[in-house]
Amino acid sequence: MKSHRKELWFDTKKRFEFVNITAHVKKALAESGIQEGLCLVNPMHITASVFINDAESGLLHDYETWLEEHIPHDPDRYEHNRTGETNGDAHIKRQVMGREVMLAVTKGQLDFGPWEQIFYGEFDGRRKKRVLVKIIGE
Amino acid sequence: MKSHRKELWFDTKKRFEFVNITAHVKKALAESGIQEGLCLVNPMHITASVFINDAESGLLHDYETWLEEHIPHDPDRYEHNRTGETNGDAHIKRQVMGREVMLAVTKGQLDFGPWEQIFYGEFDGRRKKRVLVKIIGE
Amino acid sequence: MKSHRKELWFDTKKRFEFVNITAHVKKALAESGIQEGLCLVNPMHITASVFINDAESGLLHDYETWLEEHIPHDPDRYEHNRTGETNGDAHIKRQVMGREVMLAVTKGQLDFGPWEQIFYGEFDGRRKKRVLVKIIGE
Repeated sequence: MKSHRKELWFDTKKRFEFVNITAHVKKALAESGIQEGLCLVNPMHITASVFINDAESGLLHDYETWLEEHIPHDPDRYEHNRTGETNGDAHIKRQVMGREVMLAVTKGQLDFGPWEQIFYGEFDGRRKKRVLVKIIGE
Repeated sequence: MKSHRKELWFDTKKRFEFVNITAHVKKALAESGIQEGLCLVNPMHITASVFINDAESGLLHDYETWLEEHIPHDPDRYEHNRTGETNGDAHIKRQVMGREVMLAVTKGQLDFGPWEQIFYGEFDGRRKKRVLVKIIGE
Repeated sequence: MKSHRKELWFDTKKRFEFVNITAHVKKALAESGIQEGLCLVNPMHITASVFINDAESGLLHDYETWLEEHIPHDPDRYEHNRTGETNGDAHIKRQVMGREVMLAVTKGQLDFGPWEQIFYGEFDGRRKKRVLVKIIGE
């Protein structure tokens, strides 16, 4: 069994931002030399998500609109913010969008359908954060 | 290390539909001959989910009601639909219900509690779509 | 390839409760002797979640408030409860919070960022339930 680990670093300009990281994950897989296995991609932080969906700007806008409607940023709203934070909403947004994705690796490639793209979803950005890629297989 | 890959195909009659796929995944596991490992099940499309819950018709109805209440189909509502699509809601529904499930494989069986059943959740059906099963282990 | 399986048992005092299970999962990993691999943690029940977030009491309170606001317990509200159950809400809450987490194992440790903690989220407690830990690797 082989394993490969890589960290991807991000420092978004906005508090709320989506970044397409598919090319970075493909590069990590190529570096691993793994042909058959599983690949985990997760943020190492608790106010961000990694998720798979369509690279279409209208859709990314819809995600932001829906999340703000149902989980408003409003810092006065959350108990968590009594600790001095202003990111209570970001912890809930990340939970609803999900933490991690698992990807099948087949014949040395990410085993994807036609429209699957991997996104880093940042809900409390403007600071350096990491995404972990861990691949195991043969 | 062994690995096994299988595609399951679905073509639902309705736009919104839940399909119990537990037997299909068990069959794929039996074909793999894997005794100890992990099994990934994910749609290869971005308007569908694979999730685990109870095979109870009232509950499936409750999921549909809750999702429609919080993420209405209404095609005029979503930026994504300006591309000519009508499935903006389906991309959000899939995100809230989750993309994939990971299952433990123990002694050649899906390592399940008493009520766990695997569902394909289709939110933009009436066309052919695939689910990927990827199992690794020994 | 090595694999390790462990069940963790819980019997919460309240219907809705969060339990930090990080130490239990670390112990299971230490027992496994696995240095590089993947670790799956999932409830074996369908009205509970395993998720990763911050061990901060205000935040856990915010999760409860948000979930009750958007998915009220109200037993009369759900079709599922016509079966005699009162936990229709718990099945939906678990879906929104997610079922399972996948963790990278690196150098014999959970490969975590600074604030990641593993929680058992119980939405229909006051009875014995299990969480499954399955680790594969080398």
